[in-house]
Amino acid sequence: MAESDRNPFRFVCFIVSVALNIIFIANLCISRKALSWSARAAAEAEAVPSISCSGHGRAFLDGMIEYGKPVCECNACYGGPDCSQLLPNCVADADSGDPLFLEPFWMKHSGRSTVVIPRWHRMSYDYSDNSYISQELEKNIRKLHAITKNAVTDGRYIVFGAGATQLLNAAVYALSMNMSSPAKVVAEKPFYPVYKEQTEFFKAKQFEFHGDASFLRNGTSKTTENVIEFVASPNNPDAPADEDLMIFTMSKLTGHAGSRFGWAIVKDKNVYENMLQYKSLADSGTSKDTQLRALKLIKVVLENGGRGIYNFAYKTMRGRWTKLNHVLSLSKRFKLQEIPSSFCNYSRTVRGASPAFAWLKCTKEEDSNCYKVLHQEANILGREGSSFDAENHYVRLSLVKRADEFNLLLDRLEELVSKEEQNQTTRSS
Amino acid sequence: MAESDRNPFRFVCFIVSVALNIIFIANLCISRKALSWSARAAAEAEAVPSISCSGHGRAFLDGMIEYGKPVCECNACYGGPDCSQLLPNCVADADSGDPLFLEPFWMKHSGRSTVVIPRWHRMSYDYSDNSYISQELEKNIRKLHAITKNAVTDGRYIVFGAGATQLLNAAVYALSMNMSSPAKVVAEKPFYPVYKEQTEFFKAKQFEFHGDASFLRNGTSKTTENVIEFVASPNNPDAPADEDLMIFTMSKLTGHAGSRFGWAIVKDKNVYENMLQYKSLADSGTSKDTQLRALKLIKVVLENGGRGIYNFAYKTMRGRWTKLNHVLSLSKRFKLQEIPSSFCNYSRTVRGASPAFAWLKCTKEEDSNCYKVLHQEANILGREGSSFDAENHYVRLSLVKRADEFNLLLDRLEELVSKEEQNQTTRSS
Repeated sequence: MAESDRNPFRFVCFIVSVALNIIFIANLCISRKALSWSARAAAEAEAVPSISCSGHGRAFLDGMIEYGKPVCECNACYGGPDCSQLLPNCVADADSGDPLFLEPFWMKHSGRSTVVIPRWHRMSYDYSDNSYISQELEKNIRKLHAITKNAVTDGRYIVFGAGATQLLNAAVYALSMNMSSPAKVVAEKPFYPVYKEQTEFFKAKQFEFHGDASFLRNGTSKTTENVIEFVASPNNPDAPADEDLMIFTMSKLTGHAGSRFGWAIVKDKNVYENMLQYKSLADSGTSKDTQLRALKLIKVVLENGGRGIYNFAYKTMRGRWTKLNHVLSLSKRFKLQEIPSSFCNYSRTVRGASPAFAWLKCTKEEDSNCYKVLHQEANILGREGSSFDAENHYVRLSLVKRADEFNLLLDRLEELVSKEEQNQTTRSS
Repeated sequence: MAESDRNPFRFVCFIVSVALNIIFIANLCISRKALSWSARAAAEAEAVPSISCSGHGRAFLDGMIEYGKPVCECNACYGGPDCSQLLPNCVADADSGDPLFLEPFWMKHSGRSTVVIPRWHRMSYDYSDNSYISQELEKNIRKLHAITKNAVTDGRYIVFGAGATQLLNAAVYALSMNMSSPAKVVAEKPFYPVYKEQTEFFKAKQFEFHGDASFLRNGTSKTTENVIEFVASPNNPDAPADEDLMIFTMSKLTGHAGSRFGWAIVKDKNVYENMLQYKSLADSGTSKDTQLRALKLIKVVLENGGRGIYNFAYKTMRGRWTKLNHVLSLSKRFKLQEIPSSFCNYSRTVRGASPAFAWLKCTKEEDSNCYKVLHQEANILGREGSSFDAENHYVRLSLVKRADEFNLLLDRLEELVSKEEQNQTTRSS
């Protein structure tokens, strides 16, 4: 007592310091225990994306490994160990609808959409209700349609599939199963090439692809015929859709095409049961890892009534469409499809167009294959009109890929259009 | 100096304490930064499985939520909020091959097999080599076959699928694509019911199910016929298999049936390309979330040359087979298939049998449907012989489910056999 009295301040400091020691040690023990088994996996998962790839690529957890570290996987037309080199003469690929324009949304977004899968998670074939379908996920999908007001789900059945791709086929099987004669599968042109390729590949006795759907409208169709029609719904529905069978995909909602997740909303109980049977015999249900990820992602989408991802996606795609229109407005040789502004049922506003794909027309008679013109004169890869059963004066350009890819497409188009101006100047001088 | 000299010990303690605090604070800052975005997901994932379900159930991350907490999902025949109640008169379900006997292996195992999926992980349809197949996973699968010595992979192609289920169908399409006449799909009985159900459901023009394969062996088959035969490989191969097309599934390797992952090893390039085309049109590739999980799980399997999971699985299944034999050895009415000990190519030892399924025979003439006998007299659900195109004197019992399920099956069989003894005693007295 006498001693400590001599240096009361020093004594208090000492006690406080020791007390802090105890708190830190206790905290360390508790936090070690709390994050025991996931800590290592989490640390590994965080280390990988932090590898620098110059903003033109990224490293992945399951990527190739060199010198003990995952290597950068570069965006198209970028190379080098850190993806900093722009590759010369590289083709501007605007073919596929790979929805990577949404990647930055998820890179910036909070940790809520990170998925941690415990090692014994859902090992069984079934969920505990003996189904292949997560009830929590189904519930959240119904919520999603309620807030986006794009489809009626009340009193409807929901089936999951490996993306829209699988569900398109499941639907054709399910709808044609109990028909008296083989069903004619049709779609109005220009249509998604997979409708035809898939229906023809799975050469079933009960259906066959029959091409363009126009015969249904021009009066040559017999009313007794069995017809299954693929209809691509408008980007911008003016009311909730209420069809017999509607197919949705996560790839076009959150951008996670690689996860392969989609769902169908089905009115008729028999068709629903046929689809379940298809699913059971095709692959015994959709991966439970994928369903867990879809649940996490859709929960993030639902935050703030969906405004976060809607605003990001609309702003990005509207910006791209505006830039593309600007570049092509200077051309006489190429013409972009005109899409008027319209009322959006979700945002409750009139808004400018923001399409995922651009239909470009080569206006000159001699440019009979617009795909080839772009490829040969501008090193651009689109998808030719004939793939969609449309004319080859048209070419489809994908606008949904990464910013690097869209910017390269824009540069190449700008160059192409400027050549057109130069030619005109040369001719008139 | 003079002052500190007075209490040198106290001074050193103080300095050490302060230094420790500095280290703790620095450590706290670093670890906070290191585990920023995954911490929340990891904490959530760890909280869920720690919910107590009395050892007869578990809570899942994507399970139903009540009062803000995921509810316990009870094992078959258990109920109550914490799964502690054994439900009376509940059927002992030994029908499906749900491989949950491996669940305890993964529950005990270190954190290495936990998967953390960053929110922007593999959003693209393709890997960076434009394929649907993770090269890292393919590399690890080749390693797996090298250490288990069960299949030749050198110079062979590998295709991924949603479990064996999808690959069986993909193989039938791929093999029959370029045939001149429809292929006859056959299998030797007793065969897996899905062979028939699947081939008949996907009523393709190019193949049809033709039942038992015995006609191939008894000389009535024309050599010019196109035949595709399903062959279930022995449990215990004596050399690496080297067939034209071999199918493997993760569900029977790690027990993760819910993930839907399998692979095919293919000799012929054309068949391989046909299978890739099937995969592309069926679902645009296997989920990248599933592929990441499969990679993690297979890496754990490969640790210590596979001994960890092999020892666990063999010990468990051998124990079950021994107990089952013991119970049924007392019966005259029921006879278990005899399986001799044999040399194991992987462990390099002669070992007793450890089958996944038990074939039980009702020996009495009047017990013509053994499935019904078990169901009516013992409340046991097996799978009847006719499902496998075999005789109904046989019933198949699944031994690969959870311990709770196996133990209930054993109890019910014990009761049934003891009734037999009682009847004998009654008759002889």
